[in-house]
Amino acid sequence: MSRRAPQTTPLAPETLRARLGRARQAAAAAETDALLIAPGSDLSYLIGEAGGSFERLTALVLPAGDGTPALVVPKLEAPGYAHVPAAELGVEVVTWVDGEDPYRMVADRLGKPGRVAVSDNTAALHVLAFRDALGSAEQTLAGPVVRELRMRKDAAEIAALREAGEAIDRVHARMGEWLRAGRTEAEVGADIAAAIVEEGHTHPDFVIVGSGPNGASPHHDVSDRVIEQGDVVVIDIGGPIASGYNSDSTRTYAVGEPRDADVAGTYALLQRAQQAAVQAVRPGATAEQIDAAARDIITSAGFGEFFIHRTGHGIGLDVHEEPYIVGGSTLPLEPGMAFSVEPGIYQPGRWGARIEDIVVVTETGVEPLNNRPHELVVLGA
Amino acid sequence: MSRRAPQTTPLAPETLRARLGRARQAAAAAETDALLIAPGSDLSYLIGEAGGSFERLTALVLPAGDGTPALVVPKLEAPGYAHVPAAELGVEVVTWVDGEDPYRMVADRLGKPGRVAVSDNTAALHVLAFRDALGSAEQTLAGPVVRELRMRKDAAEIAALREAGEAIDRVHARMGEWLRAGRTEAEVGADIAAAIVEEGHTHPDFVIVGSGPNGASPHHDVSDRVIEQGDVVVIDIGGPIASGYNSDSTRTYAVGEPRDADVAGTYALLQRAQQAAVQAVRPGATAEQIDAAARDIITSAGFGEFFIHRTGHGIGLDVHEEPYIVGGSTLPLEPGMAFSVEPGIYQPGRWGARIEDIVVVTETGVEPLNNRPHELVVLGA
Repeated sequence: MSRRAPQTTPLAPETLRARLGRARQAAAAAETDALLIAPGSDLSYLIGEAGGSFERLTALVLPAGDGTPALVVPKLEAPGYAHVPAAELGVEVVTWVDGEDPYRMVADRLGKPGRVAVSDNTAALHVLAFRDALGSAEQTLAGPVVRELRMRKDAAEIAALREAGEAIDRVHARMGEWLRAGRTEAEVGADIAAAIVEEGHTHPDFVIVGSGPNGASPHHDVSDRVIEQGDVVVIDIGGPIASGYNSDSTRTYAVGEPRDADVAGTYALLQRAQQAAVQAVRPGATAEQIDAAARDIITSAGFGEFFIHRTGHGIGLDVHEEPYIVGGSTLPLEPGMAFSVEPGIYQPGRWGARIEDIVVVTETGVEPLNNRPHELVVLGA
Repeated sequence: MSRRAPQTTPLAPETLRARLGRARQAAAAAETDALLIAPGSDLSYLIGEAGGSFERLTALVLPAGDGTPALVVPKLEAPGYAHVPAAELGVEVVTWVDGEDPYRMVADRLGKPGRVAVSDNTAALHVLAFRDALGSAEQTLAGPVVRELRMRKDAAEIAALREAGEAIDRVHARMGEWLRAGRTEAEVGADIAAAIVEEGHTHPDFVIVGSGPNGASPHHDVSDRVIEQGDVVVIDIGGPIASGYNSDSTRTYAVGEPRDADVAGTYALLQRAQQAAVQAVRPGATAEQIDAAARDIITSAGFGEFFIHRTGHGIGLDVHEEPYIVGGSTLPLEPGMAFSVEPGIYQPGRWGARIEDIVVVTETGVEPLNNRPHELVVLGA
């Protein structure tokens, strides 16, 4: 009867208390009277529990000013929050039962706010009910407030991302067990999914096995295509570990010697571009500079039209979060920011390649969290 | 770099075309100018593909009147919709790239609508962007429109739910392989999760192993509690099969003879209540009558305060959907409606029990889709 909530390991109450305090300060700075945080990664970040309901309202009500924060939760689901150190965090747990109006309960706590921000992932079901309950209050997004906190990881978060990176590296190290001619992408994908769990994730979040022409579609999943000798295969995989932090790493393989004569040269170009972008990462460099470091190399070689996505995305409790490594973003990188560096070159109808590492900005430069070889790995040759 | 989309098997274009037509009619009847359907089960129902992006807008734009429906999708993600028979459905595929404003593109298509409905699960990120782009249009929920279609399943949907029910029944049939004293709930849960996939699901959606006192918390997940001889254990499990339809079934087990003397009598009461509710299902009976059929038996025996949730929920492409089997709902049941019947009795701090079958309303009565024995199964006695 319940949905699986992402697993998390306990966080120290002082860590959570500090985060809640910073979130309230950031809300005040944004002239927002309160944050309403739905189940998901923002909630996990702030109280150490992601929650998991959909149709019944659960929300952390976080006033910017003097009011007492409240965790509003269906009575039935309250046991799932038993490990949240609410008292130590100064958070009042407010339960409600079917028949009560939880939106009215929230509105009554907030009085007559001028501006209230809902977390970016809040379902429309709740967004519109809050709109109606909160009357004239302006409704905005909490994402811009919370992401200022979340994109600057602390040491424990970096350690969790490092652990996740090592786990997915172990899966890539075993690719020769599964990836060979005569098997379908789906069969290979199922084996990879099992190994993602065996190597320390709670579950696979995504498994992309893009063989031959399917590798030219960056968001390909798996299919019943039978892998052939000579195929180039893009393998992009990841998932969360018990702490809730995610892995995400891509390597490109060849099943036997590549069929197409242009693979070696084009792949070497991609490898240079990916390496250049990683090496450009340091405090003070901007997101767009990292994107350009990869893109300029690919474009200069005449392959710009085949690199059809941004260079990377932040990662943490979500697989995709701030900072995005994209043209136009002048965000200066800071120590503790973690993101993917994943340029790709896609030859429509023929083959594709992508190389992806998660990296973290250090005080002096960069620490890659994925460390498998970056060369094209030829299996079963 | 991508999120895993729920898998689906192809639906006939004529099925999807009929659904789109009914949705447009229902929107017109609700005086709504257009439906904006985000990735998820509503999208899967209407075009046969659930989609899966978050931060980039994907939406089916479905005008109630004459306008051409459009699937607005990031260019990068368009290959994931290649199997959607857009031309046969009369749906225009409109791609956009980073830097364009997809909300403005939608608004321009709609002209000056008076009322636009967003699907219930649309993330606030998109809800508020649509609000700003659509100017004076009233924003409402599409859920009430779409659920009128979705809660009346056709023969293929019932067949899919039957297949899912048989798959989860096979998992329950194997419970003796895993559930025994000395193991933790989490260890048992991991084995069950693997078996859920082995028996025909694409992945486990939830695994509840509530042993001893944990069984008294209906939304308990799994924990590191070591299962003891004499424990009563609530096992509530399910997940989607390839067509996207879900299973959800609970059985309660005893590990050896139950420790508490009141288990046999209380469980027998619960079994009578669950059976009575199933037998009450027929066309024309109301949702609240089914709830009452179980609740009255439990309440009359003096256990009403320990049955702390509604009797059931609809199921299909979502694990929880309409119709909800709950006091106060005068919805008359119709053939093709499918939902859980799952009363429970929870003794705080001691033990709990729940019995859950998915049932479907037939022309003349009821077809249960879960058929494992309803008695308390004593393992390893």
